[in-house]
Amino acid sequence: MHTFNPTTRIGILGGGQLGLMLIQAGIDWNLIVHILDPDAEAPCRHLATSFTQGSLTDYDTVYQFGQQVDVLTIEIERVNVDALEALEREGKRVFPQPSVIRIIQDKRAQKQFYRDHNLPTADFMLTENRDDVAQALAASPDFLPAFHKLGRDGYDGRGVQRVASVDDVEKAFDAPGVLEKAVDFEKELAVIVARNEQGQTATFPTVEMVFHPEQNLVEYLFAPAAISETVDRQAQEIARKTAEAFGIVGLLAVELFLTKDQQIIVNEVAPRPHNSGHHTIRANVTSQFEQHWRAILNLPLGDTAILSPAAMINLLGEPGHSGPARYEGMEALLAMSGVFPFLYGKKITRPFRKMGHITVISSDLEQLRAKAETVKESIKVKNDE
Amino acid sequence: MHTFNPTTRIGILGGGQLGLMLIQAGIDWNLIVHILDPDAEAPCRHLATSFTQGSLTDYDTVYQFGQQVDVLTIEIERVNVDALEALEREGKRVFPQPSVIRIIQDKRAQKQFYRDHNLPTADFMLTENRDDVAQALAASPDFLPAFHKLGRDGYDGRGVQRVASVDDVEKAFDAPGVLEKAVDFEKELAVIVARNEQGQTATFPTVEMVFHPEQNLVEYLFAPAAISETVDRQAQEIARKTAEAFGIVGLLAVELFLTKDQQIIVNEVAPRPHNSGHHTIRANVTSQFEQHWRAILNLPLGDTAILSPAAMINLLGEPGHSGPARYEGMEALLAMSGVFPFLYGKKITRPFRKMGHITVISSDLEQLRAKAETVKESIKVKNDE
Repeated sequence: MHTFNPTTRIGILGGGQLGLMLIQAGIDWNLIVHILDPDAEAPCRHLATSFTQGSLTDYDTVYQFGQQVDVLTIEIERVNVDALEALEREGKRVFPQPSVIRIIQDKRAQKQFYRDHNLPTADFMLTENRDDVAQALAASPDFLPAFHKLGRDGYDGRGVQRVASVDDVEKAFDAPGVLEKAVDFEKELAVIVARNEQGQTATFPTVEMVFHPEQNLVEYLFAPAAISETVDRQAQEIARKTAEAFGIVGLLAVELFLTKDQQIIVNEVAPRPHNSGHHTIRANVTSQFEQHWRAILNLPLGDTAILSPAAMINLLGEPGHSGPARYEGMEALLAMSGVFPFLYGKKITRPFRKMGHITVISSDLEQLRAKAETVKESIKVKNDE
Repeated sequence: MHTFNPTTRIGILGGGQLGLMLIQAGIDWNLIVHILDPDAEAPCRHLATSFTQGSLTDYDTVYQFGQQVDVLTIEIERVNVDALEALEREGKRVFPQPSVIRIIQDKRAQKQFYRDHNLPTADFMLTENRDDVAQALAASPDFLPAFHKLGRDGYDGRGVQRVASVDDVEKAFDAPGVLEKAVDFEKELAVIVARNEQGQTATFPTVEMVFHPEQNLVEYLFAPAAISETVDRQAQEIARKTAEAFGIVGLLAVELFLTKDQQIIVNEVAPRPHNSGHHTIRANVTSQFEQHWRAILNLPLGDTAILSPAAMINLLGEPGHSGPARYEGMEALLAMSGVFPFLYGKKITRPFRKMGHITVISSDLEQLRAKAETVKESIKVKNDE
């Protein structure tokens, strides 16, 4: 049975931009949200019912934070899963489930999971150290070019190295990792799936991500993706199967490759709201953030239909600028119609730091791309001089 | 010059539902919002950068609260205007301007203002007490039927009495008021206007309000109004002229009558976000709340274009129910597509108390009306048993 209880106390591990947008969406239903974050100046600090400064990876801190809430969720995977499991055993509702977070926070376990569940993914080998990588490539040179990924704690492009030839082996991590055959892809796609306790699932329409050539960060996102209906349907189907294989309650953001021979394979997943769904706040009937609440509070999932085609541009700290943030060109953005800047309120900018994002909507797809480029050129995050 | 300053400290007098939606809209730009409200359990309490419990009508309280911010605004007109004027003199930016609030918070001054500025409004007489009303009606029986309105402190339908005949005079207020000839209207309309410091104005498309037959509260709102393009344009024009006559910086919600002979006349105004603009969060490119921020922070005004036709239903406390609020039927609402409940988080429900609102969107106008009725029947605010 679905039940809405206005007195449910919710806790989020992490009070960054995802927490911020979760709180914003939760205001509609007057959700009571407590935040744990290591940063005293976390974006959510003043918007939470209570704010606790503390480590997300420390057992006692997470356990004690969890004691004061009824439902616990996350905005980041790097959390103490042992504490979450203890809380779950004691009857707290923890979504996504700790068992799911445990698999996903280790890229090795994640890849093995896809193989075990017959989910399409790039060929890979598990490696324990750099020597392992060298031996593996010596034995199977056809695996090149490849990516070596750190098993744990990779984030936003950190923890991934491209190994183009045997000479590149020195770039590989000297720690447990996964060596993945590089995929010759045409496009990078993503589908966000929601699943609630009753097993109801809902997928958002497939989006297309264009990555920054140097930084492994989404530079532009287009929704819907410029793909055939068949590919869109297949991508949503694979994403849904992946969420069902995990049995996740919450959101699962599934990043996919569309290969040059039109196969769709799973790249990686995140068990939470995701950068590839920020546009849904403005462009879909239900946003990914509201959908997250619906999923973990066991409410009916919302309609994911598109209201308008959209683009999303990450607002990254300008190279060469570090210090208190200043948003050069913000006024010009605000003078454009259908352009929605979202600032995360991080006090300090650093080169390529995610400082915000901008959603652009337009019913005309050509205009949308042009507008997205104009927007990108119009705003820069610099340090306050 | 437009300038966006992320460190501007903003204060709002009032932390109820309008403050709540202002804070929610302000999250996009990471606005720093401080709240003053007399209620320790005000909806905004946990969402403000700081929350001060205190009277909005006490000089010292308002003055001291204003000292800690750079820009001061309101969510309600019943505030201490003397304190706001003192703050303004000392260089604080106070929007809407205290001089505008002073006129609007007194219905007598408001009506006189329309007359002085040749703004179309229902015929009226100023009265000092009940005897005055009796004498006026004895001298001009053609003024009947009429409404007697209390000069000050009327709100949400309180402070208004219908005087249908000379026998009804005992219902009139024995205090300074305004006796207004009843208007034989076809529809009640509203237009929200924004005006910034540079004098730029923007109007939202005209909406239609359907009032509750007993309570003087909006029961249904439809946007756009079912009126001709000419009437829509005229309504927006009169609203804009009204805002310009006041010289307001901020939002002005202008309630209008469309008379049976197709004249548009001003009923009353509110210098702030308004119940007749809640749907803009979901249905327009820019919401009234974001527009308020744009206006008072001297930023370019946003595009007010409609993304989808919408209806808005006020969620009122069920008659016969008082106590901790329970939202019966919330799950059914959440299962419908394009239905957006917004709860204000008031702990206690009372008969006809505004507990929230629901926005409904649909591209089909017939479907929209049917859906609005279904929604209204689906949810009830009762007390927790």
